Amino acid sequence: MSKIILSDISTTAPKGISKKDLKDKTKKQVKRLGELQNILYAEGKHSVLVIFQGMDGSGKDGAVRKVFQECTIAGLDLVSFKKPSEEEFAHDFLWRVHRWVPQKGMTTIFNRSHYEDILIQRVHEWIDLDRVKKRMAAINAFEDLLQADNNTLIFKFYMHISYEEQGIQLQQRLDDPTKYWKHNPGDWEERQHWDKYMEAYGFAINESHTPWHICPVDNRWYRDYFVSKTIVEALEKLDMKLPMPNKENGQ
Amino acid sequence: MSKIILSDISTTAPKGISKKDLKDKTKKQVKRLGELQNILYAEGKHSVLVIFQGMDGSGKDGAVRKVFQECTIAGLDLVSFKKPSEEEFAHDFLWRVHRWVPQKGMTTIFNRSHYEDILIQRVHEWIDLDRVKKRMAAINAFEDLLQADNNTLIFKFYMHISYEEQGIQLQQRLDDPTKYWKHNPGDWEERQHWDKYMEAYGFAINESHTPWHICPVDNRWYRDYFVSKTIVEALEKLDMKLPMPNKENGQ
Repeated sequence: MSKIILSDISTTAPKGISKKDLKDKTKKQVKRLGELQNILYAEGKHSVLVIFQGMDGSGKDGAVRKVFQECTIAGLDLVSFKKPSEEEFAHDFLWRVHRWVPQKGMTTIFNRSHYEDILIQRVHEWIDLDRVKKRMAAINAFEDLLQADNNTLIFKFYMHISYEEQGIQLQQRLDDPTKYWKHNPGDWEERQHWDKYMEAYGFAINESHTPWHICPVDNRWYRDYFVSKTIVEALEKLDMKLPMPNKENGQ
Repeated sequence: MSKIILSDISTTAPKGISKKDLKDKTKKQVKRLGELQNILYAEGKHSVLVIFQGMDGSGKDGAVRKVFQECTIAGLDLVSFKKPSEEEFAHDFLWRVHRWVPQKGMTTIFNRSHYEDILIQRVHEWIDLDRVKKRMAAINAFEDLLQADNNTLIFKFYMHISYEEQGIQLQQRLDDPTKYWKHNPGDWEERQHWDKYMEAYGFAINESHTPWHICPVDNRWYRDYFVSKTIVEALEKLDMKLPMPNKENGQ
C-alpha cells in the first residue's frame, strides 16, 4: 500500500460536484444506513465500530449527528473519549476502550478513541517514540482481534480539515452564541502544535493495519456524503437478512 | 528457549525434600508475600496478575486460599472465569478478561483465564486450529500490552497433575461430604479428553511470549511452596518502597 501524505490530499469537496445533487444523495444514503443498521441489529451476527478522529473543529460531532439520524437507537451507542479518569490512567491505554467495543448486532461510534494515546500524548512528549511504536503495535493487534474474533467492521475516519478552516471554525465558536458552549481556550493552544499533530496523524494512518478513510471536511455537506457512502457501501456487501419466521416449525 | 514437554516433567515434589522443612519455608514465604503485596499496594507503581490454569482437581482453589492468606484484601482481587455469559459471548474472547486486569497497586488472581478459549474450545473443536493460532497471537499482544503499558507482572502457573492423581481428587469429591459441593459430573467427561488437553496445554505453554511456571501439584504442600517462592522472588527484585513523609515539606 502506498504511503498516505495528508498534505497532498485536498480538504475540500472534489471540483465540479453540485452541492444540491449531493445533498439529495446524502439524504438517501443516511436513510439506507438506518435500514441496514436496523437489519444488523436484528440479525445480531456482525458488529460495527465507527471511529472519528480529527483536530478540534473538524466536525466530528456534526458527522455523528447527521449521518446516524435514521439509525435505531436501541442498536446504536456513542462513546466520547475525553481526558482519562484516575482509574483509567491506572490501567493500560486500551483498557477503557475495550470495555465499550460493540457486541454482536451493535453499532458503536467512538468520538475520539485509543488513537489519542499516540496523538496528543506524542505531540506533548508525555511518551517517547518507543512507547508510541509499542502502542501502535498494540492497537493493530487489538483491531485485528475485534475483526477476527467478533465479526466487527471497523471504519476509521480521519476528519481532514485545513489549518485555515480550523481557524474559521474555532472563531465561530467565539462569535456565535449558539456555538459558544463548544469554545475551549485549550483548542487554540493545541492549534499551535498543528505540524506536530499532522506528523502524528500521518504515522497513525500509515502504520495501521486497518485502513483509514481520509474525509475532506472543509465543506460539511461533502463530509456527510463521504461518511454515509463509505459505511453504506460496506454494509451492502454483508448480505444481511432480517430473521424470518421458520414455516417448517409452524412459527 | 527449549520446548517444554509436559510428559517429561514430574508432577510430584522433587525427591529428598523434607515435607516438614518445606512447610516451614512456605509459611515464611506466604508471610513475606503479604508484606510485599502490601508495599505494592501502598506504592501504586506496579500491578500483579497471577493466572492459575490446570485440569479439574489440580488444586487451583487451594493455591488461591493458601498462598495469598496474608495479603491485604484491599489490594487483592480474585476473578474466577466460568462459562461465558450471553453478553460475553457476543464480544471478542478477551473482552471479559481485559475489564478485570489489575490497576496499578493491585494484585489480581485469575482462576482460569483467557487460556480457556484455546483449551476447552480447542479440545471440543468449537474453533479450528487457525482460530486457535489467531487467538494465541492476540493473547501474546494482550499480555505484552499489560506488561509494557501498565507495569504489570504476570505469573502464569500451569498446575501440573498426573492422570492418576486427578482420578483420586475427583473421587474424593464424591466420597468426602465436605468436598461434595465441588463435584461436577462434567469433570469426569472432560477427563476422557486428557490427551487432547495435554496437547492443547503444550501448545499454549510453548507459544506464549510470557513464560509459564510448571507447578507440580500431586503433593499439595509442594504446590504452595512453589507458587509462593516464584512470586516472592520476583517481587523482591522490584526494589519497592513504602511512600514516606517528605521531611522537607514539613509533612
